[in-house]
Amino acid sequence: MTQQCVVKAQSITDGQQYCLRRVPGFRAKDDSSLLAIDKWKDIDHPNVVRVREAFTTRAFGDSSLIVVYDFKPLSMSLKRRIIDQHEIFSEGRLWRIVLQITSGLKAIHSAGLSARMLNAATVLIAPEDRVYLNSCGLVDLLMVDAAYIVDVAQQEDLRAIGQILDLALGMNPENIATIQGQAPAIVPGASFSADFKQLFGYLHGRMTPVIAIDDILRLAGPRMFAELDSARRDADLYRTNLAHEAANGRLARLLCKLNFITERPEHTMDPEWSETGDRYLIKLFRDYVFHLVDDVGRPVLDMAHVIGNLNKLDAGSAEKIMLMSRDEQSCLVVTYSEIKRCVDGAYSDLAAASRFRK
Amino acid sequence: MTQQCVVKAQSITDGQQYCLRRVPGFRAKDDSSLLAIDKWKDIDHPNVVRVREAFTTRAFGDSSLIVVYDFKPLSMSLKRRIIDQHEIFSEGRLWRIVLQITSGLKAIHSAGLSARMLNAATVLIAPEDRVYLNSCGLVDLLMVDAAYIVDVAQQEDLRAIGQILDLALGMNPENIATIQGQAPAIVPGASFSADFKQLFGYLHGRMTPVIAIDDILRLAGPRMFAELDSARRDADLYRTNLAHEAANGRLARLLCKLNFITERPEHTMDPEWSETGDRYLIKLFRDYVFHLVDDVGRPVLDMAHVIGNLNKLDAGSAEKIMLMSRDEQSCLVVTYSEIKRCVDGAYSDLAAASRFRK
Repeated sequence: MTQQCVVKAQSITDGQQYCLRRVPGFRAKDDSSLLAIDKWKDIDHPNVVRVREAFTTRAFGDSSLIVVYDFKPLSMSLKRRIIDQHEIFSEGRLWRIVLQITSGLKAIHSAGLSARMLNAATVLIAPEDRVYLNSCGLVDLLMVDAAYIVDVAQQEDLRAIGQILDLALGMNPENIATIQGQAPAIVPGASFSADFKQLFGYLHGRMTPVIAIDDILRLAGPRMFAELDSARRDADLYRTNLAHEAANGRLARLLCKLNFITERPEHTMDPEWSETGDRYLIKLFRDYVFHLVDDVGRPVLDMAHVIGNLNKLDAGSAEKIMLMSRDEQSCLVVTYSEIKRCVDGAYSDLAAASRFRK
Repeated sequence: MTQQCVVKAQSITDGQQYCLRRVPGFRAKDDSSLLAIDKWKDIDHPNVVRVREAFTTRAFGDSSLIVVYDFKPLSMSLKRRIIDQHEIFSEGRLWRIVLQITSGLKAIHSAGLSARMLNAATVLIAPEDRVYLNSCGLVDLLMVDAAYIVDVAQQEDLRAIGQILDLALGMNPENIATIQGQAPAIVPGASFSADFKQLFGYLHGRMTPVIAIDDILRLAGPRMFAELDSARRDADLYRTNLAHEAANGRLARLLCKLNFITERPEHTMDPEWSETGDRYLIKLFRDYVFHLVDDVGRPVLDMAHVIGNLNKLDAGSAEKIMLMSRDEQSCLVVTYSEIKRCVDGAYSDLAAASRFRK
């Protein structure tokens, strides 16, 4: 394969991060030679790194091909994990990897395409053993003239899973069988289940000449449930965290509102915004939330106090609090819902004032 | 089944919401009669509503049994969706439901238990067709004396899936076959695939006397991949949103820091906290972020301005901004990283002062 270089880039149009793969010295034969990527753009699958765009550029002082892929944070190639990091994958993890590669290939094959350069270097593995097929479509651009039969290429894709398993199993001497007079062979060791051995044999074409995705699925059997459960567990975990984080968004908006209202310089002289009305209450509340001091006058930096009070304000709780003036000469007992009414009113006034400008 | 009442409750120990199921008039024979729930507490599966606890109480003026379940927001029973909302489920959605029920049952059966009261009323369906088996373990408590054979009960669980399909299919007249002289029968109509018809027949025991989860899986075939993809897509969507929302948390913490520092009443007289030092810069920055006015003095309420500036502050950007004093007599040109240093310093001072108290 040609020399490539890969960079992470941020788009100035959507702010997202992408992975740019550059192939130097690429000469497009004609305008249509980049069209091969179009079919790949539609492959949107959780186990395939999405292809966004392909173009040629002279920005690097030569004619380079750039293919834009989605960026997958914290992922690295399976090859690096196996060879460089000497990682040994358990049977369960290998099933996860096989099922995810198969799942991605199913989407690619259903679209009438083939991965064509599937190997441990073009399979990315992200945290929680999430697998992505990478570099899709690149070979279609680089070998645009080379004729190939899609059915054959698809068979090669499936057989490539077997070669990836070879690489992973070969790291553990237990899986290397040596018979005198013959080259050592990779065979799943005694710790592997019969299903896995059958899958391994199947992927190496020892049983049937044609490999089918459905057969892989059949051999995986109930392991699909394990895979499904783990995907759902991930979704649940993210959703739970999302609910917590969404609360932060609510608090951030409320804090901005309070800051928009309090201490505005232009209102210090304005009797409508005087320190005796609604805004005074908001100011006292702000002091109560952020400028609390203990009985000997030391500042209290208690986030629980801040968040609890802001939540009650946001909910408009009927609970009462006592707000003290700065000179400690007067105090007011108000409910959170009254303060909420003041904040909403003051913010509406501000918003109305800002809308005046055309 | 006995009269029950269900309430949503919030725990005062962990703040989470739970679903409490109350059975009035329950008399525990002895202390050990609630032990049947213990085995259920360990069932932690994405398609099963988790059982947390069971206890008896006299708080309602009688002897009530309370079983505490996780609360699943926005979910309702499949029965209500089918009967009350007259919802017609497509074949794809029915497969999703069957596979999720089967997945949940697999976890339950593997633990040596059986659902025992599986029907459309005890299956919850949440948004995105997420399915949960509900009310688990309740029957074990209510019928603690009734002997049952777990293998038989597990078979009934699987057959119950067939009955749920009956209910769903029966809503569409296309699926009701009437042969003269016989009671109308429910049979999947012409729009259903051969696989589905086979599954339907299998679940009604027309092919084999014993139903096995693995056979359901085999009949589902590649539909498992569809299910898996959809679960992974959910996880990806939540993760993307989580990344956005986590930024809100960061901003909320930064806003709290700023509010802790600015306008503290106890420092108005303190020369160390005077309005000429670091804190003055922070105050001017706060004014710049929140109290911006346009050229004719109207307030600017621009969240993009606020978030952009807070992000630059948080990152300690080397970009410069011009801060104007309130009397517009002086102006300062500073980088965000200088302001960040001021904020961090001022906050450390405050934190040090607050730590003094023992």
